[in-house]
Amino acid sequence: MSRPILEFWHEFASTYSYIAAMRVEAEAARHDVEIVWRPFLLGPIFGAQGLTDSPFNIYADKGRYMWRDMARLCDDYGLAFRKPSVFPRNGLLAARVAVRGVRDGWGAAFIRGVYEANFVHDRDITDAAVLAPIVIAAGGDAERAFTDAADDAIKTALRRQTEEAQARGVFGAPSFTTADGELFWGHDRLEQALQWAVKHHH
Amino acid sequence: MSRPILEFWHEFASTYSYIAAMRVEAEAARHDVEIVWRPFLLGPIFGAQGLTDSPFNIYADKGRYMWRDMARLCDDYGLAFRKPSVFPRNGLLAARVAVRGVRDGWGAAFIRGVYEANFVHDRDITDAAVLAPIVIAAGGDAERAFTDAADDAIKTALRRQTEEAQARGVFGAPSFTTADGELFWGHDRLEQALQWAVKHHH
Repeated sequence: MSRPILEFWHEFASTYSYIAAMRVEAEAARHDVEIVWRPFLLGPIFGAQGLTDSPFNIYADKGRYMWRDMARLCDDYGLAFRKPSVFPRNGLLAARVAVRGVRDGWGAAFIRGVYEANFVHDRDITDAAVLAPIVIAAGGDAERAFTDAADDAIKTALRRQTEEAQARGVFGAPSFTTADGELFWGHDRLEQALQWAVKHHH
Repeated sequence: MSRPILEFWHEFASTYSYIAAMRVEAEAARHDVEIVWRPFLLGPIFGAQGLTDSPFNIYADKGRYMWRDMARLCDDYGLAFRKPSVFPRNGLLAARVAVRGVRDGWGAAFIRGVYEANFVHDRDITDAAVLAPIVIAAGGDAERAFTDAADDAIKTALRRQTEEAQARGVFGAPSFTTADGELFWGHDRLEQALQWAVKHHH
């Protein structure tokens, strides 16, 4: 019998996606669920809501809370964390490379590496020179990854993935969707999403 | 030795505050923490952010998600739930009565009753005729409660409580604050907030 599947929608600029990306594989393994990594862009989705910046920048109290909350949560989970000097960092290039990586099998390791570069080492993840060693460490071919990322096929694939997120009701990151169409929003719903995927698996 | 204290900030229009209000006493008892019930109004706080309606009404995807999420969560927690025909319902009168009730010792039961009236029985909680039997069932004097609620002293007390919430960084409901100034937002942070209150209690 096949394992239940949970799709994991993440955006590279999203702080809480960092926590989810670092925890999702171990939690999924405990429930014997297969994770499908789905990088997408929040920008177009926020744009459709009339937002031109992160809600954490627009609403100061919410932003202050988020940074404190991140520090507390990462402490609880044993994850390193440093507030990046630039927020949000544009994840477009990294997301294109991630789409290529997910197809080639080095996506999850690359995605985790990008989150750590941004939220632990405060590196500029919009820069190909920062991303290239992460591709290599994940087991990919950096030169080919960037050539492909500039290609229309990958650009279109990422755009479609973002449209698909939107069509499934995704309005924030991280989110999780199940085969039967349930949506869960927030790293703190990972457990609930996994339980749903197992319970409603046929 | 005194017990640790957790302040519970809730708004009557808030769906997730309903879940928190129904669960907070039992969870606090498990941790031997004392709950201080703090009714406040989100309206002025949202207004200061430039919002004139519930974010769940402004952002359609987020709203759709919230109603589905509420149904799932209430199912998990064994709480009755029905989507009210009017949302959000203005909690001003109920909050004033609640301030009176918290002082007189019948606040928690009244607050839970108001949430059930709104989110289980779809009753109009802006109506004193709906609230009066809830005051009585909670052990209060309904006539006196409404007289006092119309008095400047209670009006001012509620306004101060809302200002205090804002000063502590509260930007949504439910929220929890600890004696050492930590803020936790969301019914799903109740457990974390209780653990913090216990761990940092002197």
